[in-house]
Amino acid sequence: MKIAVIGATGTVGQAVCAELKSRHEVIEIGATRGAHRADLRDLASIKRLFETIGRVDAIVATAGHVHFGPLVEMTPEQFRVGLDDKLMGQVNLVLTAREYLNDGGSLTLTSGIIGEAAILQGASAASVNGAIEGFVRGAAIELPRGLRINVVSATMLEEARASFGPYFRGFEAASVARVALAYSRSVEGAETGRVYKVH
Amino acid sequence: MKIAVIGATGTVGQAVCAELKSRHEVIEIGATRGAHRADLRDLASIKRLFETIGRVDAIVATAGHVHFGPLVEMTPEQFRVGLDDKLMGQVNLVLTAREYLNDGGSLTLTSGIIGEAAILQGASAASVNGAIEGFVRGAAIELPRGLRINVVSATMLEEARASFGPYFRGFEAASVARVALAYSRSVEGAETGRVYKVH
Ligand SMILES: NC(=O)c1ccc[n+]([C@@H]2O[C@H](COP(=O)([O-])OP(=O)(O)OC[C@H]3O[C@@H](n4cnc5c(N)ncnc54)[C@H](OP(=O)(O)O)[C@@H]3O)[C@@H](O)[C@H]2O)c1
Ligand SMILES: NC(=O)c1ccc[n+]([C@@H]2O[C@H](COP(=O)([O-])OP(=O)(O)OC[C@H]3O[C@@H](n4cnc5c(N)ncnc54)[C@H](OP(=O)(O)O)[C@@H]3O)[C@@H](O)[C@H]2O)c1
Repeated sequence: MKIAVIGATGTVGQAVCAELKSRHEVIEIGATRGAHRADLRDLASIKRLFETIGRVDAIVATAGHVHFGPLVEMTPEQFRVGLDDKLMGQVNLVLTAREYLNDGGSLTLTSGIIGEAAILQGASAASVNGAIEGFVRGAAIELPRGLRINVVSATMLEEARASFGPYFRGFEAASVARVALAYSRSVEGAETGRVYKVH
Repeated sequence: MKIAVIGATGTVGQAVCAELKSRHEVIEIGATRGAHRADLRDLASIKRLFETIGRVDAIVATAGHVHFGPLVEMTPEQFRVGLDDKLMGQVNLVLTAREYLNDGGSLTLTSGIIGEAAILQGASAASVNGAIEGFVRGAAIELPRGLRINVVSATMLEEARASFGPYFRGFEAASVARVALAYSRSVEGAETGRVYKVH
């Protein structure tokens, strides 16, 4: 398969590429780094990317920022960061890039454990992750040409414990290599509309 | 209790007011109709409303538009309608109006069955409803002064069958009076962070 990984320069993205590379042609896409770049907030940038790399069999997105902060201090503008970046970025990708997928191809998006589990300062992340999972369930039944769509929801990564540990006391962490398996399952399996939980 | 119902002129809002009025002081708020008006997309409008009606013990929101349409024709702008209106409207309310709630007061928001259940043309609604439910779970653990927050997720209303029936073939409908009970349970109960499903 020819697989485009958007967010390939990040912690999760690197592990997904490592998992898939031995069996597939993987095109690694960053926002500010690497040979191929795209900004998911910008439709024209997504189109340019696929005009350059051509049609693919699978698209994986492991990109997306949200604002973390106390609810009682959060402004609507801060709340919107996650909607514009992590949510609309991935929605833009589905609405635009699906045209560059071969028949039967797949889209695999990224949500996260927050939302199902509540953590302090995570109200915006909870909302964004819930939105992505709802979208995937809704989109799965409408994609044409046998296209599939799934989402991976991971707990805190072991590799992110230094920065995120204080927010996730008591949570079991998962290695990023284990999380990468869920992306492989989505890409190399045949299911659609699934939330693959690694937690 | 003194209860503000935003969306009081709508199908769900009218039933919620009818359920609560016999036991409580209910302030009915519309967008374009009625004695009290507010536009949840506009923070200043929310503030003006509460400066006028004063502090309350409960706030209920039964307002919110989303775009319905085939996924393969949906533009990012159409997708954003639901984020700006149904999602950010209710988020704005929580971020702003909570200051006008008395200690121990409650917020009750509105999502819907789409998202948990997929229907054709419902990908945006699925995303918005998922976002609201994630937000409520996240916000519940951060609200100060014993404030509570819940959300009601209803199936298609019997009263809406004429317009929505074709989208919901095979779904059991619920009477709007039954749906109103879930709002009463949130307002008059003591739970927080709950999704009350009427389906
Ligand atoms: N880390 C965790 O513990 C964890 C756990 C569960 C879920 N997640 C989720 O997994 C996702 C990735 O997390 P991560 O820790 O791997 O993040 P990361 O290390 O910060 O990597 C982010 C990646 O996304 C790219 N990117 C950033 N903004 C972009 C944009 N607008 N358009 C396209 N690409 C963009 C970055 O490119 P550049 O390198 O060029 O900037 C980078 O490749 C996030 O959505 C996060 O919420 C993370
Ligand atoms: N109908 C169903 O079958 C069903 C089922 C499950 C969930 N729901 C959800 O329940 C909610 C209400 O549905 P409904 O059928 O009762 O809708 P509706 O009859 O159209 O009523 C909408 C209400 O919201 C008000 N409103 C509209 N835009 C607003 C804004 N920007 N700011 C403040 N108020 C605003 C309207 O005021 P004006 O009258 O002044 O315009 C009206 O009171 C929706 O979120 C819907 O998704 C509905």
